[in-house]
Amino acid sequence: MGSTVINQIDLIKELFPICRSITGQGVRETFDILSKYIPLEVHEVPTGTKVFDWEVPEEWNITDAYIECPDGTKIAQFKENNLHVMSYSERVNTTLDLNELKEHIHTLPDHPDWIPYRTMYYDRSWAFCLSQNVLDSLPEGKYRAVIDSEHIDGSLTYSEAVFPGTSGKEVLFSTYVCHPSMCNDNLSSVAVMTKLANYMSKKKNLKHTYRFVFLPETIGAITWLSKNQKRLAKICAGVNLTCTGNRGPLTFKKSRQEESLSDHAMERSLDDMGLDYNKTSFSPVGSDERQYCSPGINLPVVTLMRTPPGEFEEYHTSADDLSAISSESLDEVYEACLGYIEILEKNYVYVNMYSKGEPQLGKRGLYRKVGGQRSNKVSQTAIKWVLNYSDGKHDLLDISSKSGIRIRELIEAANALEERSIIMRILK
Amino acid sequence: MGSTVINQIDLIKELFPICRSITGQGVRETFDILSKYIPLEVHEVPTGTKVFDWEVPEEWNITDAYIECPDGTKIAQFKENNLHVMSYSERVNTTLDLNELKEHIHTLPDHPDWIPYRTMYYDRSWAFCLSQNVLDSLPEGKYRAVIDSEHIDGSLTYSEAVFPGTSGKEVLFSTYVCHPSMCNDNLSSVAVMTKLANYMSKKKNLKHTYRFVFLPETIGAITWLSKNQKRLAKICAGVNLTCTGNRGPLTFKKSRQEESLSDHAMERSLDDMGLDYNKTSFSPVGSDERQYCSPGINLPVVTLMRTPPGEFEEYHTSADDLSAISSESLDEVYEACLGYIEILEKNYVYVNMYSKGEPQLGKRGLYRKVGGQRSNKVSQTAIKWVLNYSDGKHDLLDISSKSGIRIRELIEAANALEERSIIMRILK
Amino acid sequence: MGSTVINQIDLIKELFPICRSITGQGVRETFDILSKYIPLEVHEVPTGTKVFDWEVPEEWNITDAYIECPDGTKIAQFKENNLHVMSYSERVNTTLDLNELKEHIHTLPDHPDWIPYRTMYYDRSWAFCLSQNVLDSLPEGKYRAVIDSEHIDGSLTYSEAVFPGTSGKEVLFSTYVCHPSMCNDNLSSVAVMTKLANYMSKKKNLKHTYRFVFLPETIGAITWLSKNQKRLAKICAGVNLTCTGNRGPLTFKKSRQEESLSDHAMERSLDDMGLDYNKTSFSPVGSDERQYCSPGINLPVVTLMRTPPGEFEEYHTSADDLSAISSESLDEVYEACLGYIEILEKNYVYVNMYSKGEPQLGKRGLYRKVGGQRSNKVSQTAIKWVLNYSDGKHDLLDISSKSGIRIRELIEAANALEERSIIMRILK
Repeated sequence: MGSTVINQIDLIKELFPICRSITGQGVRETFDILSKYIPLEVHEVPTGTKVFDWEVPEEWNITDAYIECPDGTKIAQFKENNLHVMSYSERVNTTLDLNELKEHIHTLPDHPDWIPYRTMYYDRSWAFCLSQNVLDSLPEGKYRAVIDSEHIDGSLTYSEAVFPGTSGKEVLFSTYVCHPSMCNDNLSSVAVMTKLANYMSKKKNLKHTYRFVFLPETIGAITWLSKNQKRLAKICAGVNLTCTGNRGPLTFKKSRQEESLSDHAMERSLDDMGLDYNKTSFSPVGSDERQYCSPGINLPVVTLMRTPPGEFEEYHTSADDLSAISSESLDEVYEACLGYIEILEKNYVYVNMYSKGEPQLGKRGLYRKVGGQRSNKVSQTAIKWVLNYSDGKHDLLDISSKSGIRIRELIEAANALEERSIIMRILK
Repeated sequence: MGSTVINQIDLIKELFPICRSITGQGVRETFDILSKYIPLEVHEVPTGTKVFDWEVPEEWNITDAYIECPDGTKIAQFKENNLHVMSYSERVNTTLDLNELKEHIHTLPDHPDWIPYRTMYYDRSWAFCLSQNVLDSLPEGKYRAVIDSEHIDGSLTYSEAVFPGTSGKEVLFSTYVCHPSMCNDNLSSVAVMTKLANYMSKKKNLKHTYRFVFLPETIGAITWLSKNQKRLAKICAGVNLTCTGNRGPLTFKKSRQEESLSDHAMERSLDDMGLDYNKTSFSPVGSDERQYCSPGINLPVVTLMRTPPGEFEEYHTSADDLSAISSESLDEVYEACLGYIEILEKNYVYVNMYSKGEPQLGKRGLYRKVGGQRSNKVSQTAIKWVLNYSDGKHDLLDISSKSGIRIRELIEAANALEERSIIMRILK
Repeated sequence: MGSTVINQIDLIKELFPICRSITGQGVRETFDILSKYIPLEVHEVPTGTKVFDWEVPEEWNITDAYIECPDGTKIAQFKENNLHVMSYSERVNTTLDLNELKEHIHTLPDHPDWIPYRTMYYDRSWAFCLSQNVLDSLPEGKYRAVIDSEHIDGSLTYSEAVFPGTSGKEVLFSTYVCHPSMCNDNLSSVAVMTKLANYMSKKKNLKHTYRFVFLPETIGAITWLSKNQKRLAKICAGVNLTCTGNRGPLTFKKSRQEESLSDHAMERSLDDMGLDYNKTSFSPVGSDERQYCSPGINLPVVTLMRTPPGEFEEYHTSADDLSAISSESLDEVYEACLGYIEILEKNYVYVNMYSKGEPQLGKRGLYRKVGGQRSNKVSQTAIKWVLNYSDGKHDLLDISSKSGIRIRELIEAANALEERSIIMRILK
């Protein structure tokens, strides 16, 4: 299981057809697939459970839906594309005129070929989503609308993969699994996070505990927070992933804390990759960062995405399919998260045991023999920076940002100095 | 009185002919006119009164002045333009040669048609101000210089319009009335402030007390401060108006405190107007901010002007007449002050009663019913920002500056949330 | 002695031929020459003395060196250019093949006419430095390599010129004297610092003590720091000079403290000169700032240079001769240091005794008589700035940086105000 290498695009293809919503069988089927790659603990929270200001809603399941036209042909068939049914639509089997039907139809006039994605979780109604072209082609007459769905006292489902470390602190990764057949939003992030969790399942001697949480957006995050309140104080850093697959530039959105370790680690990881990326301040508009960074929770959770949700053309439409994402985009997000984890694991504050003047590096094999030449060994520069700022106050992240030197080079220099007992790691 | 609508240009025309100085009848006549529009309390401070390091000077009044040429014609006639006489010139009636006369004449060689404005309050002398062209045309011969003025033990006159609020705090507006026939400097500000005071006279249920002070520049501000020392601790914000009428860009000069509520409120008001404007740091060079922001006073008084005094061509000349100002310019300053007042009245810190995760807005009628669509209701965004930063630390000004959302929209959102008991105002 | 006027270029010419290293006769001869201009106290620290993590090395002296070619001609003659011998080369007198010889030869292939400068202080070996062209012309055959040098138990030599002040605080100037025949690196700085010390030797009534230290780079700075640990707490500011003579732009490198008085004083001095210059953050890569600004020492020592060491083409080669430097460059550095000293001597915090409103300057002869004119006397502006910020918190440096007014003008204004007892200096 944990040892399989994951192909993110293949995983997305496997998950794509499933009809997910904020509750129901689709989420469970999704977790069954992920469990092939990572050790996943699945949690069920019963309908009606109070979670902060909210309540876990009824579970929704659907088996079929379609509109039968006056001539008997079927359109808007759920089995062809699950976007055709507004999520959480109530059961219906009724005959109506075209005009009456139209009150239950959503389209996208600006994109007449695309089917919109619509939801109505907290009111009871029903609707179909069609392309504008299909709607325009419908003749007057009697239509039959059939939705074979049910709302039941069931549960909300979320899952976690947890890899324990020794520090007593936790790093949280979170993404949402409630969207049906769309790729960028959000199977992209499900795939990236699964690959990350799979990678971490093979790591030994972790400093921190890493917790990967897959849940329905908003209500799921609220539920998880509500049930994990005692854990929150342990969370020292975290990443929320959303819409990580399209070809837009990488976007790093800061946590509400703005200058937390988590913010600095992600920024450094991205800087070290040498990519162009967008950095934005925190805003309470977006995905689950709205919950993780609500004022009473205020976790150091940053958000990583490409084009922000709502700002790309295919957002919440049938056009958000495989053609909307790229393997390279997913890989970049994956790499950024690996760099982030490396920093969290290896960022320390050191104390220089020879802080008055420079220590004599030559007698310890850390200095070139012939002087007078211009040095082009970057590691000598890294060594000088680590030595000078190993003052019990600056961590390697600080030194990286002062010097512009990549964190990996500083980690190397720090390791060389620590091996020779020139600097000493201090607990912080 | 208070209910009249004020036309600022008409008011300026009415005030223009009066010969004002730092003391004397001209100031009193000015206040008589303003009293038609606003409830004005007039104060007289006797000559010789000690005010900080200064002393209220003798009162100066003038009835006539002119130069009689060798051929008997009169030039530099005070009754034609009161700029012809240097302010505070002593009484004179004497015959002299052209050369002797020239020692008592000011001109503007670079603007040969314009008459300069000159003063000499704290030494005794006399002088006429002429256009260079007139001076150049004078033939040799005997001239008679006549100034029918007097220096007496009288008083310095200032006035206030005060509108009480309940908070125990005061907002100060100040401008100066000591300049004779010039429009931008400073009848413009007298007119704006009169219109503002007139507007405030009709407002009910004010939070703060608003105090509008009209006084002579420098010595008047020093006198007012000296006589109101106990009041100063109550002043939470203030605006000093100078040269607010020309067509130059709006200029906002920060208070010496630089980051006071007053500074933030004015900046936000201007930003929300969507105008281009100049923002400058505090400097102790300028108008009465030199007194309000002296180190031992240090009030949070910002300065609002257009082109700063001394930097526009017509400064302190006869060219600063009606053609130098525009009604639109006055209106912008007026609007900026209204926005500033609105912020001071409605800026609060709130606490979110549902701070863990987001509260469920849908069940309280504050959320769209169908999900999945891009939202373009700005108010939903405003609601999210107010909710997230209602943490007992950020006021609406802070939220506006973090979010870029106009303060009025945030006030609306805050009101909607407060009505539903989702957020609670805290006293600060 | 102290009264001689120093021509920096002549002094450099006089010092140029001497073979200096980190120890030995060359340094002593150098100090003998400097002693003609400044009162220099010379210190000898014996070989083997422990200085922090280091040990004073053996003293090295050399009298002659050359390579005898197969045909008997001599090349690489030390007496022609002391760069021909790698500094600290051990004594040798041996015959070898061309191939064996080449293992002991350094050249600069990119600059085939230039001789490199090389050192090997802390290992024992020997080498010659040649131009690539000469090396390429050598035929096969037997060569004799002769280096007549010795390593002895001797001492490391440094010197100081000290001019006492009354404040109990010290200002440190430091530069290094260990480089042989090269001008920019670092006879330039030796000359500038000698001229500065000469200037200070004539000053009376100094506030601070000024200490000018000439020492070998790295080991000399470490030695000085080690032997002056009790003095360090007194050092309130300092300047490290390196490579101050070439035609590159002036470069100001901040101290590790970054915002110390020393940093602000040097920045202001440079700004007031109206030059273009480069300002860089502190980095632990460079010259003796690596020691002065090591984390356990952390003195407020800034670095002044032109093109940083290692970044100019002639760095550590025979091309760093008189043609590589200019008298104007040296003068600019000298002036910058004089300005820096003037600030350290005259920068005070004042308290305005008339802090409520402005004091009446007119009655004290500090105000123009006729009002209304645009003022173009900068000193009136300087007076207003000094008055407003003489609040016990801002020093003249702060005022200069707020106002953009040159420090000398502020000093003048402060003096005028202090003479009239309007402001009072406070001890800080």
